[in-house]
Amino acid sequence: MADLLSPEDRATQLPPLAETGWAAVPGRDAIRKIWKFRGFSEAWGFMSRAALAAERLNHHPEWRNVYNVVDVTLTTHDCRGLSRLDIDLARVMDRFAPEAEIQRDHGEPVTSLCQARTRQA
Amino acid sequence: MADLLSPEDRATQLPPLAETGWAAVPGRDAIRKIWKFRGFSEAWGFMSRAALAAERLNHHPEWRNVYNVVDVTLTTHDCRGLSRLDIDLARVMDRFAPEAEIQRDHGEPVTSLCQARTRQA
Amino acid sequence: MADLLSPEDRATQLPPLAETGWAAVPGRDAIRKIWKFRGFSEAWGFMSRAALAAERLNHHPEWRNVYNVVDVTLTTHDCRGLSRLDIDLARVMDRFAPEAEIQRDHGEPVTSLCQARTRQA
Amino acid sequence: MADLLSPEDRATQLPPLAETGWAAVPGRDAIRKIWKFRGFSEAWGFMSRAALAAERLNHHPEWRNVYNVVDVTLTTHDCRGLSRLDIDLARVMDRFAPEAEIQRDHGEPVTSLCQARTRQA
Repeated sequence: MADLLSPEDRATQLPPLAETGWAAVPGRDAIRKIWKFRGFSEAWGFMSRAALAAERLNHHPEWRNVYNVVDVTLTTHDCRGLSRLDIDLARVMDRFAPEAEIQRDHGEPVTSLCQARTRQA
Repeated sequence: MADLLSPEDRATQLPPLAETGWAAVPGRDAIRKIWKFRGFSEAWGFMSRAALAAERLNHHPEWRNVYNVVDVTLTTHDCRGLSRLDIDLARVMDRFAPEAEIQRDHGEPVTSLCQARTRQA
Repeated sequence: MADLLSPEDRATQLPPLAETGWAAVPGRDAIRKIWKFRGFSEAWGFMSRAALAAERLNHHPEWRNVYNVVDVTLTTHDCRGLSRLDIDLARVMDRFAPEAEIQRDHGEPVTSLCQARTRQA
Repeated sequence: MADLLSPEDRATQLPPLAETGWAAVPGRDAIRKIWKFRGFSEAWGFMSRAALAAERLNHHPEWRNVYNVVDVTLTTHDCRGLSRLDIDLARVMDRFAPEAEIQRDHGEPVTSLCQARTRQA
């Protein structure tokens, strides 16, 4: 059973993910990133590596693929929000596609996730 | 460039797909099916075979995966609606997972796709 | 670091694997099984699931694929012979393809692996 | 049914492949290349893209994987030797892994394939 990220961990770990293109999902304690690859083959190569990483962490993404686009949302169902597993999987995925185009016109700043949880704590 | 399915092809080819669990997507000329597998591994094995089939047909699904669930929507962007490619890809996907559970509580009967296109023709 | 299987574990765990088609590799402390699928797609679906399992165990096969044939050898390089990891991976792979044809005209009976290690012990 | 590569095609198309690391397999009309990746994940991402390309060409490799190493042999069984399909698949695979380390201590220069077939012609 994973624990929700503490306010301190959110403050230190979410902003670096925001720089690589992760944003907050409105209304959920979840982060999302959208990769645009050069075609289906490149998108699928990325997904194949991400599937291995997910299985290794025993933590799986919510993801959607349409041809060259891979749209990933991470959250931890066990604890109904972001946990260390989401941070780990996000970082691994970022390493697999350093050169892909990132779509940034969605969601809210990850700081919204830090603030919300800080108030609840 | 793929052609839209004719009313005659819709009438003969969509109902058999409906029996395997494909339904019409409200407001789109598209079909959708939701598979529930026994876990991520089985879902991923299915997706890996479907990816090969898609690449061979040069026709790709819109699909979403959350752990053991694979949610597939098929339409042909070139012709802004259903073409023979969607029928072919749907049939191939059906062959890959004959024993998976199918979620049937979504969408509309495929007959709505036959009627709509018949009226437009 | 994995430990070599004990003579007792070999005597109890290798024979059931032999029944599913695993055989001893002459001259190595390793087991091998050859699956024949109905085509590349089915072979690749199997390999995709096996890759996930391997990553989860952090233990990887030596494998070869030619169209519909997947030829797998398992051993543990760390301990230069069979370990519990090989048994685990063999069992998982067996579950992924219960209906595939198995080629049985290679190798030696797994009992050779029990005897050899018993003598060394 | 694919045709064997002509001597002219061999003379123009094999040498560029030799530069990227493809070599002749002794005793066969086949080419081979060995990639060394940084780990299984990277190797598997490469194989997943190559599987798509193979399925699209309807032409499949003989390949072997041990952790980070992918060892590929290409030939065309239909025509018992190298065809245009092997050149196409080799070029596509080369595009998928431009930065991987290539092991070059195997086989013979591809010029042996040009000479042999020139003499037979």
